Amino acid sequence: MLQKDNKLEVSAIENGTVIDHIPANVLFKVISILNLDKIDKQITFGTNLMSKKLGKKAIIKLSDTFFIDKEINKIALVAPQAKLNIIRNFNVVEKKIVEVPEEIIGIAKCMNPKCISNNEKIVTRFRVLSQKEVKLKCHYCEKITDQEHIEII
Amino acid sequence: MLQKDNKLEVSAIENGTVIDHIPANVLFKVISILNLDKIDKQITFGTNLMSKKLGKKAIIKLSDTFFIDKEINKIALVAPQAKLNIIRNFNVVEKKIVEVPEEIIGIAKCMNPKCISNNEKIVTRFRVLSQKEVKLKCHYCEKITDQEHIEII
Repeated sequence: MLQKDNKLEVSAIENGTVIDHIPANVLFKVISILNLDKIDKQITFGTNLMSKKLGKKAIIKLSDTFFIDKEINKIALVAPQAKLNIIRNFNVVEKKIVEVPEEIIGIAKCMNPKCISNNEKIVTRFRVLSQKEVKLKCHYCEKITDQEHIEII
Repeated sequence: MLQKDNKLEVSAIENGTVIDHIPANVLFKVISILNLDKIDKQITFGTNLMSKKLGKKAIIKLSDTFFIDKEINKIALVAPQAKLNIIRNFNVVEKKIVEVPEEIIGIAKCMNPKCISNNEKIVTRFRVLSQKEVKLKCHYCEKITDQEHIEII
């Protein structure tokens, strides 16, 4: 029997946002940063898809969901090469890239275990030193947290 | 411009497992129980899809991934109506339902905050009293944890 009844309903979306070029290994971090587990609109995720640029990539398609820049730029920390397509009436009406903000507040954890932000109830805060291979300088202890060690809170 | 380049690669799978009829609100619990965030095969998730039975459902399609019954039955705790299709060469070669096991070891948390399993390093253990609306009787404190309160560890 052909698996005809099991086609995913969403292969293209009518209105919404497509987030493409997410490194596969951070898909679930992106989901958590954007709180996608709490959205009640139709969402399709694909992961471990082949990509020339990223090796393995993930893609997220969100129906009837749009983000403000400030919100979407939070994912730049883990998926700096992510690309957004804004869809209206099945057409791509806008393309966006995510931009690493100059300051990061309350998303990442400082990698210095002795930092006050890891020992008291303080919202983390970093200045972004490098936007390509992200480097975060902690506002409190001044230690650098590099991309490989970024842990999302 | 049409969003042609953004089609998800996986609409049907050649070989693998389709898990259908997952209540949408437990998709991420199912992902966590089955450790799907650590699999490197192609996976497609769809969530908040309309379902007559479940209201909103989720579906997971896993390429080149198969489960033994014991493993897949773990999701019966949160998605007792889930249905599995095993796919070979684009065809459904087997259909399975998940079955709530008689005993649950180390997946769920006892809802009694005073239970020893919540206060010492002890693997939780429950006898399953009811399989439809799942009710778990704790081996240690004998308190009942019902479906609504099941928390996956």
